[in-house]
Amino acid sequence: MRKIFLFFILWSTTTAGYISAQENVAFTPKKRVISPEVNDDNTVTFRVFAPQASQVYVVGNWMDKDAAGQAGKAEMQRQDDYWIYRSPKLASDLFLYNIQVDNAIWSDPLNVYQIRDVGNIFNYFVTGGDQSSLYQVADVAHGTIAKRWYNSPTLGMNRRITVYTPPGYEMDKGEYPVLYLLHGMGGDEEAWPSLGRVAQIMDNLLAAGKIKPMLVVMPNGHVSNTAAPGESSKGQYPIDFFTPDVGTGKMEESFADVIGFVETNYRVKKQKAARAIAGLSMGGSHTLFISSYIPNTFDYIGLFSAAFRMNEKAESPVFDQFEKNLVKQRDNGYQLYWIGMGKEDFLYKTGKEYREKLDHIKMPYTYYESEGGHTWSNWRTYLTLFLPQLF
Amino acid sequence: MRKIFLFFILWSTTTAGYISAQENVAFTPKKRVISPEVNDDNTVTFRVFAPQASQVYVVGNWMDKDAAGQAGKAEMQRQDDYWIYRSPKLASDLFLYNIQVDNAIWSDPLNVYQIRDVGNIFNYFVTGGDQSSLYQVADVAHGTIAKRWYNSPTLGMNRRITVYTPPGYEMDKGEYPVLYLLHGMGGDEEAWPSLGRVAQIMDNLLAAGKIKPMLVVMPNGHVSNTAAPGESSKGQYPIDFFTPDVGTGKMEESFADVIGFVETNYRVKKQKAARAIAGLSMGGSHTLFISSYIPNTFDYIGLFSAAFRMNEKAESPVFDQFEKNLVKQRDNGYQLYWIGMGKEDFLYKTGKEYREKLDHIKMPYTYYESEGGHTWSNWRTYLTLFLPQLF
Repeated sequence: MRKIFLFFILWSTTTAGYISAQENVAFTPKKRVISPEVNDDNTVTFRVFAPQASQVYVVGNWMDKDAAGQAGKAEMQRQDDYWIYRSPKLASDLFLYNIQVDNAIWSDPLNVYQIRDVGNIFNYFVTGGDQSSLYQVADVAHGTIAKRWYNSPTLGMNRRITVYTPPGYEMDKGEYPVLYLLHGMGGDEEAWPSLGRVAQIMDNLLAAGKIKPMLVVMPNGHVSNTAAPGESSKGQYPIDFFTPDVGTGKMEESFADVIGFVETNYRVKKQKAARAIAGLSMGGSHTLFISSYIPNTFDYIGLFSAAFRMNEKAESPVFDQFEKNLVKQRDNGYQLYWIGMGKEDFLYKTGKEYREKLDHIKMPYTYYESEGGHTWSNWRTYLTLFLPQLF
Repeated sequence: MRKIFLFFILWSTTTAGYISAQENVAFTPKKRVISPEVNDDNTVTFRVFAPQASQVYVVGNWMDKDAAGQAGKAEMQRQDDYWIYRSPKLASDLFLYNIQVDNAIWSDPLNVYQIRDVGNIFNYFVTGGDQSSLYQVADVAHGTIAKRWYNSPTLGMNRRITVYTPPGYEMDKGEYPVLYLLHGMGGDEEAWPSLGRVAQIMDNLLAAGKIKPMLVVMPNGHVSNTAAPGESSKGQYPIDFFTPDVGTGKMEESFADVIGFVETNYRVKKQKAARAIAGLSMGGSHTLFISSYIPNTFDYIGLFSAAFRMNEKAESPVFDQFEKNLVKQRDNGYQLYWIGMGKEDFLYKTGKEYREKLDHIKMPYTYYESEGGHTWSNWRTYLTLFLPQLF
């Protein structure tokens, strides 16, 4: 090891300094402080270097909001140049957090594991336990995640799409069923793969024999964008949550393009019995409108914290014929119409009204009511409950 | 838009507060301050919210290091609760930076565009100009980036690999050539796709008709790991640059497994004339040892800022027979043996000695000497120079 050690020393000394990325040597070999540290009892210890700060908080999505509706936070305690906080025991889940230093919000620089949610970067960690073990990479056979582009003649653009194919798909000869999985208003084709941990959940449930092998297709639900921020010719623009395309019906009108792409480009079964569609929030709205607009296409439908109609002024055949289409969908039949909603979701009332609409026309569905609200924690859980019922 | 606006207001008011990721609404609609802002003249303006800070710097990889070898930084000026800095005109490139606040280093929270380099997260931006236009997503046909897993019988493990397939590959019938592209000591199968902008460079050079359609295969060069940090069953561990597998010869010994996987799983040409291999730094060392160890396999070889033997004590047939293998490789012949090196690279002397070795045995090569050192800026440039010479 002598030579390699010399190599390392040479490297370090020629490129000292914290930011040496240009030298590909931002190796921080002395930075042995760990944050966050998930302890065996699912408490989590955070450590932040901020020698001149006056007040430092962990701002985490496991904490209750305060009376003003502000995000929950926990004060860190100074220990020399560092600030320390140890959480109570947390549930078995993936959690997000940031660090607040003297009223400004930052990522934890000791934690390179980060996820973008809409226009913010959050650090994440995964605690132990049964549910979260589905979100971790395990020593099991792994599927493939591909970032591809498909053409949408209806929208007149090429668009980016994420496709999960199960282990063995490439070398197999058989045809597979497909789940189309749609994100919410703040998401894009990266949301389910990152915050939703789709590859990990699929691999783990497949390895456990709990689900059928299937493709999971994750398109971008914002028809005014071709791809996630930074992945289109718009470049690295500041992310604006409020896209003008929400609720226009264009995603629903153009969805046949997605199916056409998948059924032409992948070895999949082209029957209703082999098609599922599910979505969260805005994606739930897309799901219910798509599955009724093309009312004999899907045998499995999943609404996760679904919104209903998001722009009442928008004109689209998707909305004009909705009541009639829904009756058609009912009459055509299907295997599963699954609705998941959290008791504290701000769309709870919307969901209740939609279920009443279904009751009114005697359209069968399965309803699952969970604790919590409009959260990725719930959407990951709903996915793990929905998948074993497919195909 | 009335209803959607109401929807938005409802959403915002029920989930106020900065971190509301759990509610999927960290939308920060009021955060209209932009950082960084790349101006038309390639100056860049940075803005940081840090109301109680005493001293704030931009630490960027375009700045010269100081006398002590510390990373270059520029002091920001206070403007109310923000700190502002405008850079001089920058070259046409992709740049990395962080923010230093009162001696602690953070990411720029207004810039969601970030790349991990080894164990640190950096914000990035791309300036204008010809060279950097190759690094941006353009309105051209796009290839596919897939994250797959292959089996390495030699290493006895399944390993993650990134594969770029060119636009049209999936629906085409033809067979393609392959470039195997290897990362450095601090990298993994994510390095070339992220810091190296491989998908963008390939798409853009293909659209310009400057290169042949080909696959680019990017394996993980650390044989003690199965995948990049966070992507293996090791979970989200603190990243240690110093892996014990560097220079052991195992990557070279097991490389036939990668080729076997590609040639079994993809529609590629299985001839020397259709195989290229290139790598940076440690990956350059891998490249020169692999291409001589299996000395009639590649017609195109690229060494970017290549290291040579990185651990002189390691025993491997790869090293034992190196001089003989090199002569065999010379006698077998090849189309291109391309060497790129920066004048300020700390491996400059290593590279010079290697070229002398090649001169000594009259082994032909093409040498390109650039400005600068051991940098991703150079490696991206070398790739754009190497690719048009292939196949």
